[in-house]
Amino acid sequence: MKAVCLLSGGVDSATALAVARRDGFETYALSFDYNQRHSIELEAARRIARHLGARDHKILKIDLRAFGGSALTADLDVPKARRRDEIETGIPITYVPARNTVFLSLALAWAEVLGAFDIFIGVNAVDYSGYPDCRPEFIQAFERVANLATRAGVEHPPGTQGFTIHTPLIRLTKGGIIRLGIELGVDFSLSHSCYDPAGAKACGLCDSCLIRRAGFAEAGVEDPVEYVR
Amino acid sequence: MKAVCLLSGGVDSATALAVARRDGFETYALSFDYNQRHSIELEAARRIARHLGARDHKILKIDLRAFGGSALTADLDVPKARRRDEIETGIPITYVPARNTVFLSLALAWAEVLGAFDIFIGVNAVDYSGYPDCRPEFIQAFERVANLATRAGVEHPPGTQGFTIHTPLIRLTKGGIIRLGIELGVDFSLSHSCYDPAGAKACGLCDSCLIRRAGFAEAGVEDPVEYVR
Repeated sequence: MKAVCLLSGGVDSATALAVARRDGFETYALSFDYNQRHSIELEAARRIARHLGARDHKILKIDLRAFGGSALTADLDVPKARRRDEIETGIPITYVPARNTVFLSLALAWAEVLGAFDIFIGVNAVDYSGYPDCRPEFIQAFERVANLATRAGVEHPPGTQGFTIHTPLIRLTKGGIIRLGIELGVDFSLSHSCYDPAGAKACGLCDSCLIRRAGFAEAGVEDPVEYVR
Repeated sequence: MKAVCLLSGGVDSATALAVARRDGFETYALSFDYNQRHSIELEAARRIARHLGARDHKILKIDLRAFGGSALTADLDVPKARRRDEIETGIPITYVPARNTVFLSLALAWAEVLGAFDIFIGVNAVDYSGYPDCRPEFIQAFERVANLATRAGVEHPPGTQGFTIHTPLIRLTKGGIIRLGIELGVDFSLSHSCYDPAGAKACGLCDSCLIRRAGFAEAGVEDPVEYVR
Protein backbone atom coordinates (compact mmCIF):
# COMPACT_ATOMS: atom_id res chain seq x y z
CA MET A 1 0.00 0.00 0.00
CA LYS A 2 1.09 3.50 -0.83
CA ALA A 3 1.30 6.43 1.59
CA VAL A 4 2.13 10.08 1.02
CA CYS A 5 4.41 11.35 3.80
CA LEU A 6 4.94 15.04 4.44
CA LEU A 7 8.67 15.54 4.95
CA SER A 8 10.22 18.79 6.13
CA GLY A 9 13.65 17.42 6.89
CA GLY A 10 13.30 17.75 10.66
CA VAL A 11 13.21 15.15 13.42
CA ASP A 12 9.44 14.71 13.48
CA SER A 13 8.71 14.20 9.81
CA ALA A 14 11.73 11.86 9.48
CA THR A 15 10.36 9.74 12.31
CA ALA A 16 6.84 9.78 10.85
CA LEU A 17 8.28 8.57 7.52
CA ALA A 18 10.11 5.78 9.36
CA VAL A 19 6.83 4.76 11.05
CA ALA A 20 5.09 4.59 7.66
CA ARG A 21 7.87 2.34 6.40
CA ARG A 22 7.69 0.15 9.53
CA ASP A 23 3.95 -0.20 8.99
CA GLY A 24 4.56 -1.63 5.53
CA PHE A 25 3.72 1.35 3.34
CA GLU A 26 5.47 2.16 0.11
CA THR A 27 6.28 5.80 0.87
CA TYR A 28 5.96 8.89 -1.34
CA ALA A 29 7.66 11.79 0.40
CA LEU A 30 6.45 15.33 -0.24
CA SER A 31 8.34 18.50 0.67
CA PHE A 32 7.66 22.14 -0.10
CA ASP A 33 9.88 24.88 -1.29
CA TYR A 34 7.68 27.66 0.06
CA ASN A 35 10.42 30.24 -0.02
CA GLN A 36 11.08 29.59 3.64
CA ARG A 37 13.95 31.31 5.41
CA HIS A 38 15.44 27.92 6.25
CA SER A 39 15.24 26.39 2.78
CA ILE A 40 18.37 24.44 3.67
CA GLU A 41 15.92 22.00 5.28
CA LEU A 42 15.10 20.80 1.74
CA GLU A 43 18.61 19.33 1.49
CA ALA A 44 17.89 17.43 4.70
CA ALA A 45 14.55 16.26 3.28
CA ARG A 46 16.33 14.89 0.20
CA ARG A 47 18.90 13.05 2.32
CA ILE A 48 16.23 11.56 4.58
CA ALA A 49 13.94 10.46 1.75
CA ARG A 50 16.88 8.57 0.25
CA HIS A 51 18.04 7.21 3.63
CA LEU A 52 14.57 5.89 4.51
CA GLY A 53 13.90 4.36 1.11
CA ALA A 54 11.07 6.57 -0.11
CA ARG A 55 9.77 5.29 -3.45
CA ASP A 56 9.57 8.87 -4.73
CA HIS A 57 10.24 12.33 -3.35
CA LYS A 58 8.73 15.49 -4.76
CA ILE A 59 9.63 19.02 -3.75
CA LEU A 60 6.79 21.28 -4.77
CA LYS A 61 7.28 25.05 -5.10
CA ILE A 62 4.63 27.38 -3.70
CA ASP A 63 5.63 30.89 -2.81
CA LEU A 64 4.07 31.49 0.61
CA ARG A 65 6.24 34.63 0.79
CA ALA A 66 3.65 36.14 -1.57
CA PHE A 67 1.41 36.30 1.50
CA GLY A 68 4.03 36.83 4.25
CA GLY A 69 2.77 37.04 7.81
CA SER A 70 5.39 34.85 9.47
CA ALA A 71 9.01 35.11 10.58
CA LEU A 72 9.64 32.13 8.28
CA THR A 73 8.19 33.79 5.17
CA ALA A 74 8.70 37.53 5.69
CA ASP A 75 11.46 39.85 6.82
CA LEU A 76 10.71 39.45 10.51
CA ASP A 77 13.21 38.32 13.15
CA VAL A 78 13.07 34.76 14.41
CA PRO A 79 12.78 34.93 18.23
CA LYS A 80 15.82 33.61 20.09
CA ALA A 81 16.57 32.11 23.50
CA ARG A 82 13.00 32.21 24.73
CA ARG A 83 12.15 30.55 28.01
CA ARG A 84 10.12 27.35 27.95
CA ASP A 85 7.04 29.11 29.35
CA GLU A 86 7.33 31.77 26.61
CA ILE A 87 7.52 29.07 23.92
CA GLU A 88 4.44 27.38 25.34
CA THR A 89 2.28 30.52 25.55
CA GLY A 90 0.33 31.68 22.53
CA ILE A 91 1.06 31.27 18.85
CA PRO A 92 4.55 32.49 17.89
CA ILE A 93 5.61 34.71 15.00
CA THR A 94 7.14 31.66 13.29
CA TYR A 95 3.64 30.29 12.71
CA VAL A 96 3.05 30.22 8.94
CA PRO A 97 -0.61 30.98 8.19
CA ALA A 98 -2.55 27.84 7.29
CA ARG A 99 0.65 25.97 6.46
CA ASN A 100 -0.44 22.47 7.46
CA THR A 101 -3.79 22.96 5.71
CA VAL A 102 -1.95 23.90 2.52
CA PHE A 103 0.52 21.03 2.87
CA LEU A 104 -2.15 18.43 3.64
CA SER A 105 -4.25 19.64 0.69
CA LEU A 106 -1.36 19.11 -1.68
CA ALA A 107 -0.57 15.73 -0.09
CA LEU A 108 -4.22 14.84 -0.69
CA ALA A 109 -3.96 15.86 -4.35
CA TRP A 110 -0.93 13.64 -4.86
CA ALA A 111 -2.46 10.76 -2.88
CA GLU A 112 -5.55 10.85 -5.04
CA VAL A 113 -3.47 10.65 -8.22
CA LEU A 114 -1.34 7.81 -6.79
CA GLY A 115 -4.34 5.85 -5.56
CA ALA A 116 -3.06 6.18 -1.98
CA PHE A 117 -5.49 6.50 0.93
CA ASP A 118 -2.94 7.14 3.66
CA ILE A 119 -1.20 10.38 4.50
CA PHE A 120 1.44 10.70 7.23
CA ILE A 121 2.20 13.97 8.99
CA GLY A 122 4.60 14.38 11.90
CA VAL A 123 2.54 16.82 13.94
CA ASN A 124 2.87 16.73 17.66
CA ALA A 125 0.62 18.26 20.29
CA VAL A 126 2.95 17.85 23.31
CA ASP A 127 6.38 19.44 22.76
CA TYR A 128 5.29 21.74 19.99
CA SER A 129 5.38 25.42 19.27
CA GLY A 130 1.74 26.26 19.92
CA TYR A 131 0.73 26.03 16.26
CA PRO A 132 -3.05 25.54 15.95
CA ASP A 133 -2.66 23.25 12.94
CA CYS A 134 -0.86 20.61 15.01
CA ARG A 135 -3.89 19.73 17.16
CA PRO A 136 -5.86 16.46 16.91
CA GLU A 137 -9.16 18.29 16.28
CA PHE A 138 -7.63 20.00 13.25
CA ILE A 139 -6.41 16.68 11.87
CA GLN A 140 -9.85 15.07 12.34
CA ALA A 141 -11.53 17.98 10.59
CA PHE A 142 -9.07 17.74 7.70
CA GLU A 143 -9.66 14.00 7.35
CA ARG A 144 -13.35 14.75 6.91
CA VAL A 145 -12.53 17.31 4.21
CA ALA A 146 -10.32 14.74 2.45
CA ASN A 147 -13.18 12.27 2.24
CA LEU A 148 -15.67 14.84 0.96
CA ALA A 149 -13.37 16.71 -1.42
CA THR A 150 -12.15 13.95 -3.65
CA ARG A 151 -13.17 11.45 -6.25
CA ALA A 152 -11.44 8.82 -4.12
CA GLY A 153 -13.43 9.84 -1.05
CA VAL A 154 -16.71 9.77 -2.95
CA GLU A 155 -16.20 6.72 -5.13
CA HIS A 156 -13.75 4.88 -2.93
CA PRO A 157 -13.21 1.29 -4.00
CA PRO A 158 -14.82 -1.51 -1.97
CA GLY A 159 -12.67 -2.53 0.97
CA THR A 160 -11.14 0.91 1.39
CA GLN A 161 -12.09 3.17 4.22
CA GLY A 162 -11.42 6.43 2.45
CA PHE A 163 -8.53 8.64 3.51
CA THR A 164 -6.73 8.36 6.82
CA ILE A 165 -4.45 11.11 8.09
CA HIS A 166 -1.88 9.33 10.25
CA THR A 167 -0.29 11.29 13.09
CA PRO A 168 1.89 8.69 14.78
CA LEU A 169 3.72 11.28 16.91
CA ILE A 170 0.82 13.37 18.10
CA ARG A 171 0.89 12.15 21.73
CA LEU A 172 4.66 11.70 22.12
CA THR A 173 7.11 14.01 23.84
CA LYS A 174 10.06 15.23 21.76
CA GLY A 175 12.29 12.81 23.67
CA GLY A 176 9.86 9.99 22.87
CA ILE A 177 9.90 10.90 19.16
CA ILE A 178 13.71 10.83 19.11
CA ARG A 179 13.81 7.46 20.87
CA LEU A 180 11.24 6.06 18.44
CA GLY A 181 13.19 7.41 15.46
CA ILE A 182 16.43 5.83 16.68
CA GLU A 183 14.63 2.52 17.29
CA LEU A 184 13.44 2.65 13.66
CA GLY A 185 16.95 3.32 12.37
CA VAL A 186 16.63 7.06 11.59
CA ASP A 187 20.00 8.75 11.27
CA PHE A 188 19.27 12.16 12.78
CA SER A 189 22.61 13.55 11.64
CA LEU A 190 20.85 13.93 8.28
CA SER A 191 18.05 16.06 9.71
CA HIS A 192 17.69 19.83 10.04
CA SER A 193 15.43 21.68 12.49
CA CYS A 194 16.73 25.24 12.80
CA TYR A 195 14.60 28.17 11.62
CA ASP A 196 17.55 30.50 11.28
CA PRO A 197 20.62 28.55 10.22
CA ALA A 198 24.06 30.02 9.60
CA GLY A 199 25.32 28.07 6.60
CA ALA A 200 24.88 24.40 7.46
CA LYS A 201 24.98 25.06 11.22
CA ALA A 202 21.92 25.37 13.43
CA CYS A 203 21.61 28.58 15.46
CA GLY A 204 20.93 26.73 18.70
CA LEU A 205 18.63 29.44 20.06
CA CYS A 206 15.42 29.56 18.02
CA ASP A 207 12.35 27.77 19.38
CA SER A 208 12.91 24.85 17.03
CA CYS A 209 16.54 24.39 18.15
CA LEU A 210 15.59 24.75 21.82
CA ILE A 211 12.82 22.14 21.57
CA ARG A 212 15.10 19.80 19.63
CA ARG A 213 17.98 20.10 22.11
CA ALA A 214 15.67 19.55 25.09
CA GLY A 215 14.31 16.46 23.25
CA PHE A 216 17.75 14.95 22.74
CA ALA A 217 18.57 15.68 26.41
CA GLU A 218 15.31 13.99 27.46
CA ALA A 219 16.08 10.99 25.25
CA GLY A 220 19.59 10.79 26.75
CA VAL A 221 21.12 10.83 23.27
CA GLU A 222 23.71 13.17 21.82
CA ASP A 223 22.35 15.47 19.12
CA PRO A 224 24.51 14.83 16.04
CA VAL A 225 23.81 18.26 14.55
CA GLU A 226 26.29 21.15 14.79
CA TYR A 227 25.21 24.33 16.56
CA VAL A 228 26.62 27.85 16.38
CA ARG A 229 25.92 28.28 20.11
CA MET B 1 -14.34 44.46 5.70
CA LYS B 2 -11.95 42.44 3.60
CA ALA B 3 -12.76 39.26 1.68
CA VAL B 4 -10.53 36.93 -0.30
CA CYS B 5 -12.28 35.88 -3.53
CA LEU B 6 -11.15 32.91 -5.58
CA LEU B 7 -11.13 34.01 -9.20
CA SER B 8 -10.63 31.65 -12.12
CA GLY B 9 -11.71 34.03 -14.84
CA GLY B 10 -14.93 32.18 -15.61
CA VAL B 11 -18.58 33.16 -15.25
CA ASP B 12 -19.05 31.75 -11.75
CA SER B 13 -16.06 33.24 -9.98
CA ALA B 14 -16.66 36.63 -11.68
CA THR B 15 -20.23 36.63 -10.37
CA ALA B 16 -19.12 35.55 -6.88
CA LEU B 17 -16.63 38.45 -6.85
CA ALA B 18 -19.43 40.83 -7.88
CA VAL B 19 -21.59 39.51 -5.02
CA ALA B 20 -18.77 40.14 -2.53
CA ARG B 21 -18.50 43.71 -3.82
CA ARG B 22 -22.28 44.19 -3.63
CA ASP B 23 -22.17 42.96 -0.02
CA GLY B 24 -19.72 45.72 0.86
CA PHE B 25 -16.49 43.78 1.03
CA GLU B 26 -13.14 45.16 -0.02
CA THR B 27 -12.11 42.31 -2.31
CA TYR B 28 -8.75 40.54 -2.65
CA ALA B 29 -8.87 38.30 -5.71
CA LEU B 30 -6.76 35.15 -5.82
CA SER B 31 -6.00 33.12 -8.94
CA PHE B 32 -3.71 30.18 -9.54
CA ASP B 33 -1.26 29.44 -12.25
CA TYR B 34 -1.32 25.68 -11.71
CA ASN B 35 0.10 24.91 -15.11
CA GLN B 36 -3.41 24.33 -16.38
CA ARG B 37 -4.04 23.57 -20.02
CA HIS B 38 -6.26 26.65 -20.26
CA SER B 39 -3.90 29.13 -18.63
CA ILE B 40 -5.38 31.79 -20.89
CA GLU B 41 -8.06 32.00 -18.17
CA LEU B 42 -5.52 33.95 -16.09
CA GLU B 43 -5.77 36.82 -18.57
CA ALA B 44 -9.52 36.79 -18.04
CA ALA B 45 -8.99 36.74 -14.26
CA ARG B 46 -6.77 39.85 -14.54
CA ARG B 47 -9.34 41.69 -16.64
CA ILE B 48 -12.18 40.80 -14.30
CA ALA B 49 -10.32 41.71 -11.11
CA ARG B 50 -9.67 45.16 -12.61
CA HIS B 51 -13.21 45.48 -13.99
CA LEU B 52 -14.80 44.62 -10.64
CA GLY B 53 -12.52 46.86 -8.59
CA ALA B 54 -10.60 44.25 -6.60
CA ARG B 55 -8.30 45.97 -4.10
CA ASP B 56 -5.54 43.49 -4.97
CA HIS B 57 -5.15 40.48 -7.24
CA LYS B 58 -2.54 37.80 -6.77
CA ILE B 59 -1.76 34.98 -9.16
CA LEU B 60 0.00 32.26 -7.23
CA LYS B 61 2.04 29.60 -9.00
CA ILE B 62 1.70 25.96 -7.92
CA ASP B 63 2.57 23.26 -10.36
CA LEU B 64 -0.29 20.75 -10.11
CA ARG B 65 1.10 19.17 -13.27
CA ALA B 66 3.74 17.68 -10.95
CA PHE B 67 0.95 15.36 -9.81
CA GLY B 68 -1.08 15.08 -13.04
CA GLY B 69 -4.21 12.95 -12.90
CA SER B 70 -6.54 15.29 -14.84
CA ALA B 71 -7.18 16.30 -18.41
CA LEU B 72 -6.48 19.86 -17.25
CA THR B 73 -3.04 19.06 -15.81
CA ALA B 74 -1.78 16.09 -17.82
CA ASP B 75 -1.54 15.07 -21.46
CA LEU B 76 -5.05 13.63 -21.59
CA ASP B 77 -7.75 14.67 -24.03
CA VAL B 78 -10.52 16.98 -22.88
CA PRO B 79 -13.84 15.24 -23.66
CA LYS B 80 -15.90 16.99 -26.33
CA ALA B 81 -19.56 17.24 -27.31
CA ARG B 82 -20.82 15.06 -24.48
CA ARG B 83 -24.56 14.80 -23.96
CA ARG B 84 -26.08 16.43 -20.91
CA ASP B 85 -26.69 13.07 -19.20
CA GLU B 86 -23.05 12.12 -19.77
CA ILE B 87 -21.88 15.38 -18.22
CA GLU B 88 -24.09 14.79 -15.22
CA THR B 89 -22.98 11.20 -14.55
CA GLY B 90 -19.88 10.53 -12.48
CA ILE B 91 -16.76 12.60 -12.02
CA PRO B 92 -15.13 13.56 -15.33
CA ILE B 93 -11.49 13.37 -16.37
CA THR B 94 -11.27 17.17 -16.15
CA TYR B 95 -11.62 16.88 -12.36
CA VAL B 96 -8.34 18.12 -10.84
CA PRO B 97 -7.55 16.12 -7.71
CA ALA B 98 -8.27 18.10 -4.54
CA ARG B 99 -8.21 21.40 -6.45
CA ASN B 100 -10.75 23.33 -4.40
CA THR B 101 -9.17 22.08 -1.16
CA VAL B 102 -5.80 23.37 -2.35
CA PHE B 103 -7.28 26.69 -3.54
CA LEU B 104 -9.30 27.26 -0.36
CA SER B 105 -6.25 26.44 1.79
CA LEU B 106 -4.24 29.10 0.04
CA ALA B 107 -7.12 31.57 0.22
CA LEU B 108 -7.22 30.86 3.95
CA ALA B 109 -3.50 31.54 4.27
CA TRP B 110 -3.87 34.92 2.56
CA ALA B 111 -7.03 35.76 4.51
CA GLU B 112 -5.26 35.12 7.78
CA VAL B 113 -2.40 37.43 6.83
CA LEU B 114 -4.84 40.15 5.64
CA GLY B 115 -7.01 39.88 8.75
CA ALA B 116 -9.95 38.84 6.56
CA PHE B 117 -12.52 36.35 7.85
CA ASP B 118 -14.51 35.98 4.65
CA ILE B 119 -13.67 33.83 1.64
CA PHE B 120 -15.80 33.73 -1.51
CA ILE B 121 -15.83 30.77 -3.89
CA GLY B 122 -18.09 30.45 -6.92
CA VAL B 123 -18.90 26.76 -6.55
CA ASN B 124 -22.22 25.55 -7.77
CA ALA B 125 -24.01 22.29 -7.03
CA VAL B 126 -26.71 22.54 -9.72
CA ASP B 127 -25.29 23.05 -13.22
CA TYR B 128 -21.85 21.75 -12.43
CA SER B 129 -19.52 19.10 -13.73
CA GLY B 130 -19.94 16.52 -10.98
CA TYR B 131 -16.85 17.61 -9.06
CA PRO B 132 -17.05 16.41 -5.43
CA ASP B 133 -15.39 19.57 -4.13
CA CYS B 134 -18.32 21.72 -5.24
CA ARG B 135 -20.84 20.25 -2.78
CA PRO B 136 -22.21 22.07 0.29
CA GLU B 137 -21.02 19.35 2.69
CA PHE B 138 -17.47 19.82 1.43
CA ILE B 139 -17.67 23.57 1.98
CA GLN B 140 -19.02 23.13 5.52
CA ALA B 141 -16.24 20.68 6.36
CA PHE B 142 -13.64 23.11 5.00
CA GLU B 143 -15.07 25.98 7.05
CA ARG B 144 -14.56 23.86 10.15
CA VAL B 145 -10.95 23.21 9.13
CA ALA B 146 -10.41 26.95 8.61
CA ASN B 147 -11.52 27.70 12.13
CA LEU B 148 -9.38 25.00 13.71
CA ALA B 149 -6.28 25.45 11.55
CA THR B 150 -5.47 29.07 12.09
CA ARG B 151 -4.35 31.64 14.60
CA ALA B 152 -7.33 33.72 13.55
CA GLY B 153 -9.70 30.81 14.12
CA VAL B 154 -8.28 30.10 17.56
CA GLU B 155 -7.68 33.64 18.84
CA HIS B 156 -10.34 35.37 16.78
CA PRO B 157 -10.97 38.93 17.94
CA PRO B 158 -14.14 39.66 19.93
CA GLY B 159 -17.08 40.36 17.67
CA THR B 160 -15.80 38.12 14.89
CA GLN B 161 -17.35 34.77 14.16
CA GLY B 162 -14.25 33.15 12.75
CA PHE B 163 -14.04 32.28 9.08
CA THR B 164 -16.99 32.05 6.73
CA ILE B 165 -16.74 30.39 3.34
CA HIS B 166 -19.30 32.17 1.17
CA THR B 167 -20.84 30.23 -1.71
CA PRO B 168 -23.40 32.68 -3.08
CA LEU B 169 -23.98 30.59 -6.24
CA ILE B 170 -24.27 27.14 -4.77
CA ARG B 171 -28.03 26.80 -5.29
CA LEU B 172 -28.35 28.72 -8.58
CA THR B 173 -28.69 27.31 -12.07
CA LYS B 174 -26.12 28.47 -14.63
CA GLY B 175 -28.78 30.71 -16.16
CA GLY B 176 -29.51 32.17 -12.72
CA ILE B 177 -25.81 32.87 -12.16
CA ILE B 178 -25.56 34.69 -15.49
CA ARG B 179 -28.66 36.79 -14.75
CA LEU B 180 -27.28 37.65 -11.30
CA GLY B 181 -23.92 38.59 -12.80
CA ILE B 182 -25.52 40.87 -15.37
CA GLU B 183 -27.67 42.49 -12.66
CA LEU B 184 -24.46 43.22 -10.73
CA GLY B 185 -22.80 44.75 -13.77
CA VAL B 186 -20.43 41.94 -14.73
CA ASP B 187 -19.18 42.23 -18.29
CA PHE B 188 -19.00 38.58 -19.34
CA SER B 189 -17.17 39.43 -22.54
CA LEU B 190 -14.11 39.60 -20.26
CA SER B 191 -14.57 36.06 -18.95
CA HIS B 192 -13.15 32.75 -20.15
CA SER B 193 -14.63 29.29 -19.49
CA CYS B 194 -13.20 26.91 -22.08
CA TYR B 195 -10.93 24.02 -21.00
CA ASP B 196 -9.39 23.63 -24.42
CA PRO B 197 -9.17 27.02 -26.13
CA ALA B 198 -7.74 27.63 -29.59
CA GLY B 199 -5.91 30.94 -29.19
CA ALA B 200 -8.37 33.36 -27.63
CA LYS B 201 -11.39 31.43 -28.94
CA ALA B 202 -13.40 28.94 -26.91
CA CYS B 203 -13.74 25.44 -28.38
CA GLY B 204 -17.51 25.38 -27.90
CA LEU B 205 -17.62 21.64 -27.23
CA CYS B 206 -15.93 20.85 -23.91
CA ASP B 207 -18.14 20.37 -20.82
CA SER B 208 -17.37 23.86 -19.62
CA CYS B 209 -18.35 25.47 -22.96
CA LEU B 210 -21.50 23.34 -23.18
CA ILE B 211 -22.63 24.26 -19.66
CA ARG B 212 -21.85 27.93 -20.31
CA ARG B 213 -23.75 28.04 -23.61
CA ALA B 214 -26.76 26.30 -22.11
CA GLY B 215 -26.63 28.84 -19.26
CA PHE B 216 -26.67 31.84 -21.60
CA ALA B 217 -29.53 30.23 -23.53
CA GLU B 218 -31.43 29.69 -20.26
CA ALA B 219 -30.82 33.30 -19.22
CA GLY B 220 -32.00 34.49 -22.66
CA VAL B 221 -28.81 36.50 -23.14
CA GLU B 222 -26.30 36.36 -25.95
CA ASP B 223 -22.94 34.91 -24.95
CA PRO B 224 -20.37 37.60 -25.84
CA VAL B 225 -17.52 35.09 -26.14
CA GLU B 226 -16.26 33.82 -29.53
CA TYR B 227 -16.46 30.11 -30.23
CA VAL B 228 -14.61 27.99 -32.78
CA ARG B 229 -17.76 25.88 -33.28
